[in-house]
Amino acid sequence: PCMIPKDHPRYESLMMRERIVEGYKMGITVLQGLIAHGRGEMFDYVLGEKSHDFALKAEKVAVALMMLSKRPVISVNGNTAVLVPEEISELSKLLNAPLEVNVFHFSKERVDRIKKYLERFGAEVLANCDAELNGLSHGRRIVDRRGIYVADTVLVPLEDGDRCEILKKHGKKVIAIDLNPLSRTAMMADVTIVDNIVRAIPNMIKFAKKLRDASREELEEIVKNYDNRKTLRLALETIRDNLTKIAEEKLRDI
Amino acid sequence: PCMIPKDHPRYESLMMRERIVEGYKMGITVLQGLIAHGRGEMFDYVLGEKSHDFALKAEKVAVALMMLSKRPVISVNGNTAVLVPEEISELSKLLNAPLEVNVFHFSKERVDRIKKYLERFGAEVLANCDAELNGLSHGRRIVDRRGIYVADTVLVPLEDGDRCEILKKHGKKVIAIDLNPLSRTAMMADVTIVDNIVRAIPNMIKFAKKLRDASREELEEIVKNYDNRKTLRLALETIRDNLTKIAEEKLRDI
Repeated sequence: PCMIPKDHPRYESLMMRERIVEGYKMGITVLQGLIAHGRGEMFDYVLGEKSHDFALKAEKVAVALMMLSKRPVISVNGNTAVLVPEEISELSKLLNAPLEVNVFHFSKERVDRIKKYLERFGAEVLANCDAELNGLSHGRRIVDRRGIYVADTVLVPLEDGDRCEILKKHGKKVIAIDLNPLSRTAMMADVTIVDNIVRAIPNMIKFAKKLRDASREELEEIVKNYDNRKTLRLALETIRDNLTKIAEEKLRDI
Repeated sequence: PCMIPKDHPRYESLMMRERIVEGYKMGITVLQGLIAHGRGEMFDYVLGEKSHDFALKAEKVAVALMMLSKRPVISVNGNTAVLVPEEISELSKLLNAPLEVNVFHFSKERVDRIKKYLERFGAEVLANCDAELNGLSHGRRIVDRRGIYVADTVLVPLEDGDRCEILKKHGKKVIAIDLNPLSRTAMMADVTIVDNIVRAIPNMIKFAKKLRDASREELEEIVKNYDNRKTLRLALETIRDNLTKIAEEKLRDI
């Protein structure tokens, strides 16, 4: 039972933290995932905890790209599973893109727990662990033969490592959700959504509903000319400018 | 047993993470402490993971202030205990300032575990939990009658909350070690050391040795005219400029 009052100024942030901590007790998130969440919190704070225009644009392009793909897959790790189980399941259905459990700290038991947890929200969840991606040494090499292994586009929320590079080498398009625009994943992805996952997935659901009846040409028009470097540059500039603004306000007060 | 190779570019950072994770398994750190550590990692990264001049200056002033104090105390929480047990014990002896275990997530068992852990490094550790500080509702109100309760200066590493404000209300001088120059603690402390604790404490040990034979006048000269607002401003400017620099380098590469 969560005791955080709804009108607490940090309610959303504290609730997310609670869900990650609860996830650890359920055997879904891992201790390293808690530390990673802390890093993300910090970036969200300096981003002003809102979905900026560059993020909304990337979210729209990501949805269009998923809709244009033959075999889109949504990769889910422990933190994603506990933060947005319902939303990611809805997005999966709207985009006809199955979820696939893929974790850095691998055990078959953990993968099965995440699968079961997500299935409660009605999603199709791949977790057969019956194929391997060359070039990765840790648990993330283990994939599902029907999923990431044959996917042409993979949505990778909350990646912390070198998987983006390998997926690209395997010829896949990668969409990343990463609050750190400086991370290797953010830098290497085809589309980088610099936004908190708890805002990004609901935004993507809205775009998916809006674009449901769009023609192939319309979708291609959205994807065409998208410049991910520009997104990264805008995100970095926003962080820098926000930091300057927060600093000036805070220093005025003391 | 830690399997991180010593030549890994992120060795220091990964080792710290391991120690925090180990601390959890020992019942010394808590899950919230792991998330807090992640936030700190992020700030250290954008600070360039080094002790800047403004930090060295604050560390020197902090040492002089502790030496000038009648009853200086070093407050220790779970993360501090596992990150720098040996160093904080050495500093404690050099400054004649006892350690006092003081944690946000309180249980007598946890406090005793931290006390025992620190005593292995030869420190005097207060943990009687026999007094209360008015104005604080959580575990941190519980202090030792011989320590923080009667202290005139408290060194507070890795604070996460509103304790700094209360200590100030009780008329104490507060020295904070906080990688986030925007935090309430950083803003309210008399001396804010914006540096990673694993560098800050060894730096303070060096200053304590250097100032061992300094006269009261010399120490007062160091403390006099110290401007903590200037420290905060320099720290914020450094983060902003580093972020810009990192961004430009990274964006050039892709």
